[in-house]
Amino acid sequence: MEKVREIVREGRRVAKEDPRRVVHSFKVGLVLALVSSFYYYQPLYDSFGVNAMWAVMTVVVVFEFSVGATLGKGLNRVAATLFAGGLGIGAHHLASMSGATGEPILLAIFVFVQAALSTFVRFFPRVKARYDYSLLIFILTFALISVSGFREEQVLMLTHKRISTVIIGGLSCVLISIFVCPVWAGQDLHSLLASNLEKLSFFLLGFGDKYCEAVGNDDTKEVDKRKNDFDNYKSVLNSKSNEESLANFAKWEPGHGQFRFRHPWKQYLALGELIRQCAYRIHALNSYLNDDTKVSIDIKKKLREPLRRMSLESGKAMKEMSMSLKNMTKPSSCELHVQNARSACKSLTNLLNSGILKEVEPLELISLLTAISLLIDIINLTEKILESLHELASAAKFKNKIERPNLLPEKTSAKSIVSVRPIKCHDDDHVITIIEDDGNDDDTSKNDSRKMKEVSNHGET
Amino acid sequence: MEKVREIVREGRRVAKEDPRRVVHSFKVGLVLALVSSFYYYQPLYDSFGVNAMWAVMTVVVVFEFSVGATLGKGLNRVAATLFAGGLGIGAHHLASMSGATGEPILLAIFVFVQAALSTFVRFFPRVKARYDYSLLIFILTFALISVSGFREEQVLMLTHKRISTVIIGGLSCVLISIFVCPVWAGQDLHSLLASNLEKLSFFLLGFGDKYCEAVGNDDTKEVDKRKNDFDNYKSVLNSKSNEESLANFAKWEPGHGQFRFRHPWKQYLALGELIRQCAYRIHALNSYLNDDTKVSIDIKKKLREPLRRMSLESGKAMKEMSMSLKNMTKPSSCELHVQNARSACKSLTNLLNSGILKEVEPLELISLLTAISLLIDIINLTEKILESLHELASAAKFKNKIERPNLLPEKTSAKSIVSVRPIKCHDDDHVITIIEDDGNDDDTSKNDSRKMKEVSNHGET
Repeated sequence: MEKVREIVREGRRVAKEDPRRVVHSFKVGLVLALVSSFYYYQPLYDSFGVNAMWAVMTVVVVFEFSVGATLGKGLNRVAATLFAGGLGIGAHHLASMSGATGEPILLAIFVFVQAALSTFVRFFPRVKARYDYSLLIFILTFALISVSGFREEQVLMLTHKRISTVIIGGLSCVLISIFVCPVWAGQDLHSLLASNLEKLSFFLLGFGDKYCEAVGNDDTKEVDKRKNDFDNYKSVLNSKSNEESLANFAKWEPGHGQFRFRHPWKQYLALGELIRQCAYRIHALNSYLNDDTKVSIDIKKKLREPLRRMSLESGKAMKEMSMSLKNMTKPSSCELHVQNARSACKSLTNLLNSGILKEVEPLELISLLTAISLLIDIINLTEKILESLHELASAAKFKNKIERPNLLPEKTSAKSIVSVRPIKCHDDDHVITIIEDDGNDDDTSKNDSRKMKEVSNHGET
Repeated sequence: MEKVREIVREGRRVAKEDPRRVVHSFKVGLVLALVSSFYYYQPLYDSFGVNAMWAVMTVVVVFEFSVGATLGKGLNRVAATLFAGGLGIGAHHLASMSGATGEPILLAIFVFVQAALSTFVRFFPRVKARYDYSLLIFILTFALISVSGFREEQVLMLTHKRISTVIIGGLSCVLISIFVCPVWAGQDLHSLLASNLEKLSFFLLGFGDKYCEAVGNDDTKEVDKRKNDFDNYKSVLNSKSNEESLANFAKWEPGHGQFRFRHPWKQYLALGELIRQCAYRIHALNSYLNDDTKVSIDIKKKLREPLRRMSLESGKAMKEMSMSLKNMTKPSSCELHVQNARSACKSLTNLLNSGILKEVEPLELISLLTAISLLIDIINLTEKILESLHELASAAKFKNKIERPNLLPEKTSAKSIVSVRPIKCHDDDHVITIIEDDGNDDDTSKNDSRKMKEVSNHGET
């Protein structure tokens, strides 16, 4: 009884996590019930006979969660069946010419050679990635046709029936998956990257404050809570295989919504890789939040402002990139945030240069400077991610963000001033900070911490 | 023509990478040719008829590369076929009681409910990991049996034939995969972890030298070569999904070689995770080999000895662990290496405490101390990996290493001296170093660099 209740709970959780799963289950049930009507209705049964079961089988095997996966599998299956059917007929014809004793031997050899060769080709990485299923069906159909052909005289008839039932089964899957509540792998990949960016931005937006204020607070509950809040980014670390399979499926999908047929899915993988690289750094940085080597509050206080700005600004840049990806608009003010982060870096370097580190213990110094170095790394990666996003934006023809027209020329000029390395432009810091705080409050709802930051920024100015 | 040559080249590469792939292809061809003999021989054909094709299908679909995957799929398929067959007969019986008009409607409802429910259950993470294929076959068989039953009167006969052909097909796959050149997923997982450890050790063994000597050498060819040599560890970063699927397959495998049936495969995943964590750190460390911020040769020279020892000793520990995992012996002298690395840490800290950093530029300092911090992290992780390996060794009952009996008591006592944290035992450093150099030369062949190190160690003493 307890077991049953647990299963129901798990079911609810699975459904809540992605309600499209429930819809998908209904779709599969529907198509299967439809296709099995082949057996019920005499006219249909008369034309296909037991071969109708191939339609049922095709539906069960081909109907996948996303349109891309279904389309890919369906096309693979139909193409492989056609090709193997043709080859099977050829093999049958060839074998039948060699007499009654020769035929089974020749057929066995054909099946052996074809199966061994195709199985080997499945190990090719490029084949495995896209045509693995094709080859499986190829082996299957060839074996079935060439071998069944030995018995049934109407091998052509059999092949024809098998191919048409497979096409009918595949087509119903594809049509239902496209026209009834479609789940697009491309859309999923797109959202996955945007949400990954957001997860990283969440960490970075909070890191500065947490890092500088964490010392001396030994409340374990508090520490645990902080850990949980920040652990969201961890799912990014292992997102590679998921991204790759989604991109593979997306390639099969026709244009949908804002995505054209040849949307640059490959560029998504490049962007995803950079995001993951950044997540690795964040993972390392996270360990310094609860480090054993306590860096003294004193030195942290001195470095607090630039440290907070570095993480806050890169976090803002990530947040903006996530928004721009989500809305498919060109990233506009991200450069400013990156610039601000760089200028904060510069202030930090100046501060470090001023001899502030002279009294710090080596062990503290290691912990502190590693955190700083990781932050710098993260800022570098943020810049690379931005570049990659720009490439994606131009390849996928993202729209320009709608802005008040009178603001545009100012912004462009501001950008052109700061588009060089930050080392050269630290005089512009305050100007940039003001522009950025102005332009950013529009598209965020959780701006509690930002407001706070704004206040302290104004204090600084 | 060029295309064909390229394919042949690719084929050779694939075969060379893992020659078992060729063997596997032959095995698949063999089983398929065998099973299709059902069609050729009149006695066999008489008893199974067209249902013989289920055997062919089972072989094509079930025969996987490793024994575990084949066994898992085969058992899944047979169990699901049995269960769904029973349920299908029940559904057919129930439907046939409701009259000629009610029957197809009731059957369609059954198929719909069963397909929708099973499809939904496939989304449960735990089910997806192990029983995904079961459910697929469950849906398929239920639909085929309950629906075909509507036509054919002998539904029991049909079910019986389907089940026995599936069992025959599955059994031949399983038998051939176990008894003809078996590929054990468990063995593969075991070797994968050992080789991952070795890759990390390769990096660490070389890192110290490369890091301290790299400055000022701007020969790009040299830099490129170094990069390539060290990039081996990168495959470890994304090994998670591979390890997980191998562990999943391994659970299905019977005892083989040194592995019992309930070998602690779960512990391998824990160990693999730690190794991957270490690889992340190494990935970060690698970026400091070719860093833009050049740390001056001066300071590197001063820190060279402890830095080199830290990376060398952790590398040696990794190497030993890799060997011990490979040979399934308990790790013996790893503790000493970890200990040595820790004592090198201690010397480094002393050196840093001596005010050596006073004149270093902040940017250099960041680069230098981050590298140091990462190395310390790596040493900590090495210790954790060792712990995890010890757990694995006791859970999997690894043998003790065969040693000269008269050396054993000495070693034990030496170990007991140094088994506490290094901070407390820095007086023993030299003793430990000597023991370790002594005990280690046995099981390594590439000891050029080690010899060098030994010399410099003695110089130090």
